[in-house]
Amino acid sequence: MIVQSIPDVIRTLNALSGLLEKGAASAQARKIDPLVLTSARLAPDMFALARQVQISCDAAKNGFARLSGVDAPKFEDTETTFEQLQARIAKTIDFLRSVTAESLVGSEDKVVTFPAGPERVLKMKGNAYLTQWMLPNLYFHTVTAYNILRHNGVDVGKMDYLKGADFLP
Amino acid sequence: MIVQSIPDVIRTLNALSGLLEKGAASAQARKIDPLVLTSARLAPDMFALARQVQISCDAAKNGFARLSGVDAPKFEDTETTFEQLQARIAKTIDFLRSVTAESLVGSEDKVVTFPAGPERVLKMKGNAYLTQWMLPNLYFHTVTAYNILRHNGVDVGKMDYLKGADFLP
Repeated sequence: MIVQSIPDVIRTLNALSGLLEKGAASAQARKIDPLVLTSARLAPDMFALARQVQISCDAAKNGFARLSGVDAPKFEDTETTFEQLQARIAKTIDFLRSVTAESLVGSEDKVVTFPAGPERVLKMKGNAYLTQWMLPNLYFHTVTAYNILRHNGVDVGKMDYLKGADFLP
Repeated sequence: MIVQSIPDVIRTLNALSGLLEKGAASAQARKIDPLVLTSARLAPDMFALARQVQISCDAAKNGFARLSGVDAPKFEDTETTFEQLQARIAKTIDFLRSVTAESLVGSEDKVVTFPAGPERVLKMKGNAYLTQWMLPNLYFHTVTAYNILRHNGVDVGKMDYLKGADFLP
Protein backbone atom coordinates (compact mmCIF):
# COMPACT_ATOMS: atom_id res chain seq x y z
CA MET A 1 0.00 0.00 0.00
CA ILE A 2 1.20 3.43 -0.96
CA VAL A 3 0.73 4.92 2.53
CA GLN A 4 3.35 2.48 3.84
CA SER A 5 6.04 4.13 1.76
CA ILE A 6 5.70 7.51 3.53
CA PRO A 7 8.01 6.49 6.40
CA ASP A 8 10.61 5.24 3.89
CA VAL A 9 10.53 8.57 2.08
CA ILE A 10 10.83 10.49 5.36
CA ARG A 11 13.73 8.22 6.34
CA THR A 12 15.53 9.08 3.10
CA LEU A 13 14.97 12.82 3.56
CA ASN A 14 16.26 12.57 7.12
CA ALA A 15 19.34 10.76 5.79
CA LEU A 16 19.78 13.55 3.22
CA SER A 17 19.58 16.06 6.07
CA GLY A 18 22.33 14.14 7.90
CA LEU A 19 24.51 14.17 4.78
CA LEU A 20 24.14 17.95 4.53
CA GLU A 21 25.00 18.32 8.23
CA LYS A 22 28.25 16.46 7.54
CA GLY A 23 28.84 18.71 4.51
CA ALA A 24 28.38 21.86 6.58
CA ALA A 25 30.65 20.53 9.35
CA SER A 26 33.30 19.55 6.81
CA ALA A 27 33.26 23.02 5.22
CA GLN A 28 33.71 24.61 8.64
CA ALA A 29 36.50 22.22 9.68
CA ARG A 30 38.35 22.68 6.40
CA LYS A 31 37.70 26.46 6.29
CA ILE A 32 35.88 26.19 2.97
CA ASP A 33 33.06 28.61 2.11
CA PRO A 34 29.96 26.39 2.50
CA LEU A 35 28.59 27.84 -0.74
CA VAL A 36 31.48 26.13 -2.55
CA LEU A 37 29.94 22.81 -1.54
CA THR A 38 26.27 23.71 -2.09
CA SER A 39 27.15 24.96 -5.59
CA ALA A 40 29.39 21.98 -6.45
CA ARG A 41 28.43 19.66 -9.30
CA LEU A 42 29.81 16.48 -10.88
CA ALA A 43 29.68 17.74 -14.47
CA PRO A 44 29.21 21.21 -15.97
CA ASP A 45 25.78 20.23 -17.32
CA MET A 46 24.52 18.61 -14.11
CA PHE A 47 22.68 20.34 -11.29
CA ALA A 48 24.61 21.61 -8.27
CA LEU A 49 24.14 20.17 -4.78
CA ALA A 50 21.52 22.74 -3.74
CA ARG A 51 19.34 21.91 -6.74
CA GLN A 52 19.74 18.16 -6.12
CA VAL A 53 18.33 18.70 -2.62
CA GLN A 54 15.48 20.86 -3.92
CA ILE A 55 14.50 18.19 -6.44
CA SER A 56 14.74 15.39 -3.84
CA CYS A 57 12.24 17.33 -1.75
CA ASP A 58 9.99 17.98 -4.75
CA ALA A 59 9.98 14.32 -5.79
CA ALA A 60 8.61 13.45 -2.35
CA LYS A 61 6.30 16.44 -1.91
CA ASN A 62 4.78 16.55 -5.40
CA GLY A 63 4.62 12.77 -5.53
CA PHE A 64 2.43 12.47 -2.45
CA ALA A 65 0.44 15.57 -3.39
CA ARG A 66 -0.47 13.94 -6.71
CA LEU A 67 -1.22 10.56 -5.17
CA SER A 68 -3.35 11.98 -2.34
CA GLY A 69 -5.01 14.83 -4.21
CA VAL A 70 -3.89 17.27 -1.47
CA ASP A 71 -2.27 20.56 -2.50
CA ALA A 72 1.43 20.65 -1.69
CA PRO A 73 3.13 23.77 -0.34
CA LYS A 74 5.02 25.70 -3.04
CA PHE A 75 8.73 26.32 -2.58
CA GLU A 76 10.49 29.17 -4.37
CA ASP A 77 13.74 27.31 -5.16
CA THR A 78 15.87 30.10 -3.72
CA GLU A 79 17.87 28.03 -1.21
CA THR A 80 21.65 28.38 -1.47
CA THR A 81 22.94 27.70 2.07
CA PHE A 82 23.01 24.48 4.07
CA GLU A 83 20.63 26.06 6.62
CA GLN A 84 18.11 26.96 3.93
CA LEU A 85 18.31 23.47 2.43
CA GLN A 86 17.73 21.95 5.88
CA ALA A 87 14.66 24.13 6.27
CA ARG A 88 13.32 22.91 2.94
CA ILE A 89 13.79 19.29 3.95
CA ALA A 90 12.02 19.98 7.27
CA LYS A 91 9.07 21.63 5.49
CA THR A 92 8.86 18.69 3.11
CA ILE A 93 8.80 16.19 5.98
CA ASP A 94 6.10 18.28 7.71
CA PHE A 95 3.98 18.02 4.57
CA LEU A 96 4.55 14.26 4.26
CA ARG A 97 3.48 13.81 7.90
CA SER A 98 0.25 15.65 7.12
CA VAL A 99 -0.76 13.24 4.34
CA THR A 100 -3.44 10.91 5.70
CA ALA A 101 -4.05 7.25 4.97
CA GLU A 102 -7.62 8.15 3.93
CA SER A 103 -6.42 10.55 1.24
CA LEU A 104 -4.35 7.74 -0.31
CA VAL A 105 -7.13 5.13 -0.42
CA GLY A 106 -7.40 3.93 -4.03
CA SER A 107 -4.26 5.80 -5.08
CA GLU A 108 -2.62 2.57 -6.35
CA ASP A 109 -4.96 2.55 -9.36
CA LYS A 110 -5.49 6.27 -9.78
CA VAL A 111 -4.08 7.83 -12.96
CA VAL A 112 -1.39 10.37 -12.06
CA THR A 113 -0.49 13.10 -14.56
CA PHE A 114 2.77 14.96 -14.10
CA PRO A 115 5.24 17.14 -15.99
CA ALA A 116 8.58 15.68 -17.06
CA GLY A 117 10.66 18.68 -18.02
CA PRO A 118 9.17 21.88 -19.40
CA GLU A 119 7.39 20.43 -22.42
CA ARG A 120 6.24 16.92 -21.66
CA VAL A 121 3.34 15.60 -19.60
CA LEU A 122 3.36 11.93 -18.59
CA LYS A 123 0.71 9.65 -17.09
CA MET A 124 1.11 6.56 -14.94
CA LYS A 125 -1.02 4.47 -12.63
CA GLY A 126 -0.42 5.41 -8.98
CA ASN A 127 1.46 2.29 -8.00
CA ALA A 128 3.81 2.46 -11.00
CA TYR A 129 4.22 6.20 -10.41
CA LEU A 130 5.41 5.47 -6.86
CA THR A 131 7.81 2.62 -7.59
CA GLN A 132 9.04 3.50 -11.10
CA TRP A 133 9.08 7.29 -10.95
CA MET A 134 8.77 8.95 -7.55
CA LEU A 135 11.05 6.70 -5.52
CA PRO A 136 13.71 6.28 -8.26
CA ASN A 137 13.73 10.09 -8.66
CA LEU A 138 14.06 10.66 -4.91
CA TYR A 139 16.96 8.19 -4.73
CA PHE A 140 18.55 9.61 -7.89
CA HIS A 141 18.85 13.13 -6.51
CA THR A 142 19.68 12.06 -2.95
CA VAL A 143 22.47 9.72 -4.12
CA THR A 144 23.77 12.42 -6.46
CA ALA A 145 23.87 14.82 -3.50
CA TYR A 146 25.83 12.14 -1.61
CA ASN A 147 28.22 11.71 -4.54
CA ILE A 148 28.81 15.46 -4.85
CA LEU A 149 29.71 15.67 -1.14
CA ARG A 150 31.91 12.57 -1.28
CA HIS A 151 33.62 13.76 -4.46
CA ASN A 152 34.43 16.97 -2.59
CA GLY A 153 36.11 15.19 0.28
CA VAL A 154 33.25 15.10 2.80
CA ASP A 155 33.53 12.04 5.03
CA VAL A 156 30.16 10.41 4.33
CA GLY A 157 29.53 6.69 3.96
CA LYS A 158 26.70 4.51 2.69
CA MET A 159 25.37 3.96 6.22
CA ASP A 160 24.67 7.71 6.43
CA TYR A 161 22.39 7.25 3.43
CA LEU A 162 20.73 4.11 4.84
CA LYS A 163 20.42 5.59 8.33
CA GLY A 164 17.18 5.04 10.19
CA ALA A 165 16.36 1.65 8.66
CA ASP A 166 14.35 -0.65 10.94
CA PHE A 167 16.92 -3.23 12.01
CA LEU A 168 15.85 -6.00 14.37
CA PRO A 169 17.91 -6.59 17.53
CA MET B 1 3.60 -7.59 -2.17
CA ILE B 2 7.27 -8.27 -2.56
CA VAL B 3 6.89 -10.24 -5.80
CA GLN B 4 5.55 -7.08 -7.47
CA SER B 5 8.90 -5.37 -7.06
CA ILE B 6 10.77 -7.90 -9.24
CA PRO B 7 9.81 -6.11 -12.50
CA ASP B 8 10.95 -2.78 -11.02
CA VAL B 9 14.31 -4.27 -10.12
CA ILE B 10 14.70 -5.82 -13.58
CA ARG B 11 13.75 -2.46 -15.11
CA THR B 12 16.51 -0.76 -13.13
CA LEU B 13 19.10 -3.36 -14.14
CA ASN B 14 18.06 -2.98 -17.78
CA ALA B 15 18.48 0.78 -17.40
CA LEU B 16 21.95 0.18 -15.93
CA SER B 17 22.75 -1.99 -18.94
CA GLY B 18 21.68 0.87 -21.23
CA LEU B 19 23.91 3.29 -19.33
CA LEU B 20 26.89 0.95 -19.81
CA GLU B 21 26.10 0.63 -23.52
CA LYS B 22 26.31 4.41 -23.79
CA GLY B 23 29.57 4.32 -21.83
CA ALA B 24 31.09 1.76 -24.20
CA ALA B 25 29.92 3.70 -27.27
CA SER B 26 31.32 6.93 -25.85
CA ALA B 27 34.72 5.34 -25.18
CA GLN B 28 34.82 4.06 -28.75
CA ALA B 29 33.72 7.39 -30.27
CA ARG B 30 36.23 9.36 -28.19
CA LYS B 31 39.03 6.78 -28.67
CA ILE B 32 39.32 6.20 -24.93
CA ASP B 33 40.37 2.79 -23.58
CA PRO B 34 37.05 1.45 -22.19
CA LEU B 35 38.91 0.27 -19.07
CA VAL B 36 39.53 3.92 -18.24
CA LEU B 37 35.79 4.29 -17.79
CA THR B 38 35.10 0.98 -16.03
CA SER B 39 37.89 1.77 -13.56
CA ALA B 40 36.83 5.40 -13.03
CA ARG B 41 35.68 6.55 -9.60
CA LEU B 42 34.36 9.76 -8.02
CA ALA B 43 36.75 9.76 -5.05
CA PRO B 44 39.93 7.80 -4.30
CA ASP B 45 38.16 5.87 -1.52
CA MET B 46 35.03 5.04 -3.52
CA PHE B 47 34.48 1.97 -5.67
CA ALA B 48 35.14 2.16 -9.41
CA LEU B 49 32.40 1.81 -12.01
CA ALA B 50 32.89 -1.95 -12.47
CA ARG B 51 32.45 -2.57 -8.74
CA GLN B 52 29.36 -0.33 -8.61
CA VAL B 53 27.78 -2.53 -11.29
CA GLN B 54 28.77 -5.73 -9.48
CA ILE B 55 27.19 -4.48 -6.26
CA SER B 56 24.02 -3.32 -8.04
CA CYS B 57 23.65 -6.88 -9.35
CA ASP B 58 24.36 -8.37 -5.92
CA ALA B 59 21.83 -6.14 -4.18
CA ALA B 60 19.16 -7.52 -6.49
CA LYS B 61 20.37 -11.13 -6.63
CA ASN B 62 21.17 -11.65 -2.95
CA GLY B 63 18.12 -9.67 -1.94
CA PHE B 64 15.68 -11.94 -3.74
CA ALA B 65 17.66 -15.04 -2.79
CA ARG B 66 17.27 -14.13 0.89
CA LEU B 67 13.62 -13.21 0.58
CA SER B 68 12.69 -16.33 -1.42
CA GLY B 69 15.00 -18.83 0.26
CA VAL B 70 16.36 -19.87 -3.16
CA ASP B 71 20.13 -20.15 -3.62
CA ALA B 72 21.51 -17.42 -5.84
CA PRO B 73 24.24 -18.07 -8.41
CA LYS B 74 27.69 -17.02 -7.19
CA PHE B 75 29.66 -14.48 -9.20
CA GLU B 76 33.45 -14.24 -8.97
CA ASP B 77 33.69 -10.43 -9.15
CA THR B 78 36.30 -10.57 -11.89
CA GLU B 79 34.53 -8.37 -14.46
CA THR B 80 36.57 -5.47 -15.81
CA THR B 81 35.18 -4.84 -19.32
CA PHE B 82 31.82 -3.45 -20.40
CA GLU B 83 31.02 -6.80 -22.06
CA GLN B 84 31.71 -8.73 -18.87
CA LEU B 85 29.58 -6.31 -16.85
CA GLN B 86 26.73 -6.68 -19.34
CA ALA B 87 26.98 -10.46 -18.96
CA ARG B 88 26.75 -10.13 -15.19
CA ILE B 89 23.63 -7.97 -15.46
CA ALA B 90 22.09 -10.51 -17.87
CA LYS B 91 22.81 -13.40 -15.47
CA THR B 92 21.31 -11.42 -12.61
CA ILE B 93 18.14 -10.72 -14.59
CA ASP B 94 17.94 -14.44 -15.52
CA PHE B 95 18.03 -15.31 -11.83
CA LEU B 96 15.38 -12.71 -10.94
CA ARG B 97 13.10 -14.11 -13.65
CA SER B 98 13.47 -17.57 -12.10
CA VAL B 99 12.18 -16.42 -8.69
CA THR B 100 8.58 -17.60 -8.32
CA ALA B 101 5.68 -15.90 -6.58
CA GLU B 102 5.23 -19.06 -4.45
CA SER B 103 8.76 -18.81 -3.06
CA LEU B 104 8.02 -15.25 -1.89
CA VAL B 105 4.75 -16.01 -0.10
CA GLY B 106 5.09 -14.76 3.48
CA SER B 107 8.41 -13.05 2.76
CA GLU B 108 7.04 -9.68 3.95
CA ASP B 109 7.18 -10.87 7.57
CA LYS B 110 10.12 -13.26 7.32
CA VAL B 111 13.26 -12.28 9.25
CA VAL B 112 16.13 -11.72 6.81
CA THR B 113 19.72 -11.95 8.08
CA PHE B 114 22.48 -10.45 5.94
CA PRO B 115 26.06 -9.24 6.15
CA ALA B 116 26.80 -5.50 6.10
CA GLY B 117 30.52 -5.29 5.50
CA PRO B 118 32.99 -7.95 6.58
CA GLU B 119 32.21 -7.90 10.32
CA ARG B 120 28.59 -7.06 10.87
CA VAL B 121 25.43 -9.13 10.48
CA LEU B 122 22.09 -7.32 10.38
CA LYS B 123 18.48 -8.50 10.62
CA MET B 124 15.33 -6.98 9.22
CA LYS B 125 11.77 -8.03 8.48
CA GLY B 126 11.34 -8.88 4.81
CA ASN B 127 9.28 -5.86 3.86
CA ALA B 128 11.64 -3.41 5.57
CA TYR B 129 14.59 -5.27 4.03
CA LEU B 130 13.12 -4.70 0.58
CA THR B 131 12.19 -1.04 0.90
CA GLN B 132 14.83 0.24 3.33
CA TRP B 133 17.85 -1.84 2.35
CA MET B 134 17.70 -3.75 -0.93
CA LEU B 135 16.08 -1.13 -3.14
CA PRO B 136 18.01 1.86 -1.67
CA ASN B 137 21.23 -0.15 -2.17
CA LEU B 138 20.34 -1.01 -5.76
CA TYR B 139 19.56 2.63 -6.52
CA PHE B 140 22.66 3.82 -4.66
CA HIS B 141 25.08 1.83 -6.79
CA THR B 142 23.17 2.29 -10.06
CA VAL B 143 22.98 6.08 -9.61
CA THR B 144 26.66 6.17 -8.64
CA ALA B 145 27.46 4.25 -11.85
CA TYR B 146 25.42 6.88 -13.71
CA ASN B 147 27.28 9.69 -11.97
CA ILE B 148 30.69 8.16 -12.76
CA LEU B 149 29.77 7.97 -16.46
CA ARG B 150 28.30 11.46 -16.53
CA HIS B 151 31.29 12.89 -14.65
CA ASN B 152 33.48 11.36 -17.35
CA GLY B 153 31.64 13.05 -20.19
CA VAL B 154 29.31 10.23 -21.26
CA ASP B 155 26.09 11.64 -22.68
CA VAL B 156 23.56 9.99 -20.35
CA GLY B 157 20.44 11.63 -18.94
CA LYS B 158 17.94 10.84 -16.21
CA MET B 159 15.53 9.29 -18.69
CA ASP B 160 18.14 6.61 -19.43
CA TYR B 161 17.95 5.71 -15.74
CA LEU B 162 14.13 5.78 -15.65
CA LYS B 163 13.79 3.94 -18.95
CA GLY B 164 11.18 1.22 -19.20
CA ALA B 165 8.70 2.77 -16.75
CA ASP B 166 5.06 1.92 -17.47
CA PHE B 167 3.70 5.16 -18.88
CA LEU B 168 0.07 5.31 -19.94
CA PRO B 169 -0.74 6.57 -23.44
